[in-house]
Amino acid sequence: MSYSEFTKEQLLDELSVLKSHYDNYVARGLSLDMSRGKPCKEQLDVSSPMLNVLNCDDLCISQQGFDCRNYGILDGIPAAKELMSGMLQVKPEQVFVGGNSSLNLMFDTISCFMTTPASEGEEPWFNVKDRKFLCPVPGYDRHFSITEYFGFEMITVPMTKEGPDMDIIEELVSKDASIKGIWCVPKYANPTGITFSDNTVRRFANLKPAAKDFRIMWDNAYCVHDLSDEGDTLLPLMAECEKAGNPDMPIIFSSTSKVTFPGAGVAALGASENNLKILKKRYTTQTIGFDKLNMIRHLLFFKNFDEIKAHMKKHGDILKPRFDTVISKFDEHIASFGIANWTVPRGGYFVSIDVYPFTAKKIVNMCKEAGLVLTPAGATYPLGKDPEDKNIRIAPSYPAVEELSLAMDVFCTCVKICAIEEILKEKA
Amino acid sequence: MSYSEFTKEQLLDELSVLKSHYDNYVARGLSLDMSRGKPCKEQLDVSSPMLNVLNCDDLCISQQGFDCRNYGILDGIPAAKELMSGMLQVKPEQVFVGGNSSLNLMFDTISCFMTTPASEGEEPWFNVKDRKFLCPVPGYDRHFSITEYFGFEMITVPMTKEGPDMDIIEELVSKDASIKGIWCVPKYANPTGITFSDNTVRRFANLKPAAKDFRIMWDNAYCVHDLSDEGDTLLPLMAECEKAGNPDMPIIFSSTSKVTFPGAGVAALGASENNLKILKKRYTTQTIGFDKLNMIRHLLFFKNFDEIKAHMKKHGDILKPRFDTVISKFDEHIASFGIANWTVPRGGYFVSIDVYPFTAKKIVNMCKEAGLVLTPAGATYPLGKDPEDKNIRIAPSYPAVEELSLAMDVFCTCVKICAIEEILKEKA
Repeated sequence: MSYSEFTKEQLLDELSVLKSHYDNYVARGLSLDMSRGKPCKEQLDVSSPMLNVLNCDDLCISQQGFDCRNYGILDGIPAAKELMSGMLQVKPEQVFVGGNSSLNLMFDTISCFMTTPASEGEEPWFNVKDRKFLCPVPGYDRHFSITEYFGFEMITVPMTKEGPDMDIIEELVSKDASIKGIWCVPKYANPTGITFSDNTVRRFANLKPAAKDFRIMWDNAYCVHDLSDEGDTLLPLMAECEKAGNPDMPIIFSSTSKVTFPGAGVAALGASENNLKILKKRYTTQTIGFDKLNMIRHLLFFKNFDEIKAHMKKHGDILKPRFDTVISKFDEHIASFGIANWTVPRGGYFVSIDVYPFTAKKIVNMCKEAGLVLTPAGATYPLGKDPEDKNIRIAPSYPAVEELSLAMDVFCTCVKICAIEEILKEKA
Repeated sequence: MSYSEFTKEQLLDELSVLKSHYDNYVARGLSLDMSRGKPCKEQLDVSSPMLNVLNCDDLCISQQGFDCRNYGILDGIPAAKELMSGMLQVKPEQVFVGGNSSLNLMFDTISCFMTTPASEGEEPWFNVKDRKFLCPVPGYDRHFSITEYFGFEMITVPMTKEGPDMDIIEELVSKDASIKGIWCVPKYANPTGITFSDNTVRRFANLKPAAKDFRIMWDNAYCVHDLSDEGDTLLPLMAECEKAGNPDMPIIFSSTSKVTFPGAGVAALGASENNLKILKKRYTTQTIGFDKLNMIRHLLFFKNFDEIKAHMKKHGDILKPRFDTVISKFDEHIASFGIANWTVPRGGYFVSIDVYPFTAKKIVNMCKEAGLVLTPAGATYPLGKDPEDKNIRIAPSYPAVEELSLAMDVFCTCVKICAIEEILKEKA
């Protein structure tokens, strides 16, 4: 029965029971940080043999005979381009292999276009005083931070089950040339876990933006991060954009941060010839080259893209019970009360839950007081402002199942307490 | 006897002999690239054991108990800050440890100040339409490329035996608030090999620039790169700036690119609290963190700064015969003719030679036709414009001594041919 159908007395009784549960949790003195999508130790251990593959100087020589211990090769060794092209869904010649962080490649891209025109004849974005960026919500806080840092006004676009609302996007970009781009996590989106439908990808590829230098920042962070064998399929954006005559619109990012090691993976971007020309002009000034030995390490560890996919099954096996724990706790504790909606993703790193409106901040605070640190409420919105204060991102990867199970008991208790308190206010 | 004292006939005879030598070299079909300061294979081999130090998961744990395979720690693990502080000559808390490239840290720094004020109340440099940067010459082409990329007018300042001409610098910066900084390689300067005198460092620290956001870009790339036991000593700039009440003026850079592996080393910068605050605000948006496993690799390989210095003696032993070869060839082939001046550095990666005026480009071309690729003439000046076309940077590190010896025979032959041809023109 939904809480909304409860009488005031029933609600007060329920609240009293829940509060005593909560007090018990507080008394147990939990200490658990679930604020970020961090892989757990078992996941890191899966890749640890990679640390030891380079134990001989000969192995540092690329297929082309290049000693990768030395300077040279700005855009990545050819075999690394080939490997990353599978993740990016682009041709190897469209790949630029960078350092350890795809976020850094995204930051560099926006930074580049701030002071250099993204398309010939356009203004550097620094000169566009009312520059704007589209931000599908809920979304990834670090994306929003980049456009915040560079002074963009951020316009939110609601997410649907098929991706961001394309009707709104088509309307907005066709009218306003100061809208310079959009952030997307197209597969197992952060945090909703949904994968953009073929129709959504095609509508992206066929956008007709007023701004000739409009860019789709396509962060395919979770491209191989299925939780089980039947993963989602994402239509390759670059091929669709090429068909639509819009090859310069997308810039596609991915990395092995959540394949091998966060912070010691290999990141890459995929882009058209025009975009690569502008970005390479910057990179050739910025650095002599990125860490080729780490590329070689990855190439010795993964002979090809199929081996990455096989490797990711091991990650899926570790993560699946964690996601199952979250979903089963939600089903068990809150499903019947009509106070929250959540996603059941088939991959990625997050479960997104919309709790009872105007209770998310309070829930996160209550959890914190019970020793459970969650992603801050509001983080999934630009500037941290969730207008209905209802979205919370759950990151199940890091804790052990047992710990996570307890954490979700605490969380569900707080969700229910705050919902009842809000409903009681409404009834008053 | 100097060529200037030769009769025309003597010069023509000499030229004829030299040209036949040159033709012989061309016929031998050399193929040698000496264009960049690349370490040689023996140098890389010295560090190869580092590739194998991380063969156990336990070793990935920092002294603070942090699993360095995972996300976290933006500014470098504490022990890495400690290690790099020795190279940067700053306190560990003034260190920011970055990725694999100090050039990238320099680029990021300028890029940061382009769109964010470098000092509170100042304009982002993008808004300073007549922005200028001081460039001691001859200097490092990749420095100049960064300020060229960001649209700075570059003002050259001549180098003396003690560093850049401080009279000129003091005069320029005191008058013109659009001069925003200066590039320096203070120890074993690229390419002259000289080390800034104590007096020069103190005068830098006591500059009174009209621009409150004037920054000294202090690239201490060769801080531990002595060729023999009696290396040069550089006064620490940060301490002097603090004494002078100018702590925000310097930003200091270094890396292990030429200590361990070019492209797979660890780079770091040292800066005041104010500068770190501005740069960290950017970096916290730019990335979750740099490669901590590579920091750990360095920390396991070098227990402390003294071990770096001991390691660098091995590099010195490899490089010394190469530098000796260059200098002895110059002494043998050109010293007596009064047509060139060169430096005899006690460390670093380069020998700088001023050939007969207006012959450098021709010499480099002649060498190229004989199969010897040198750093392009003019590269040591902003925009590649050496007004007297006389400076050439010799990079002796990469070739074997025997090869280098032959290369210097070719080079000296070309230097003499071009000098004689120029003198003959003058006499005509």
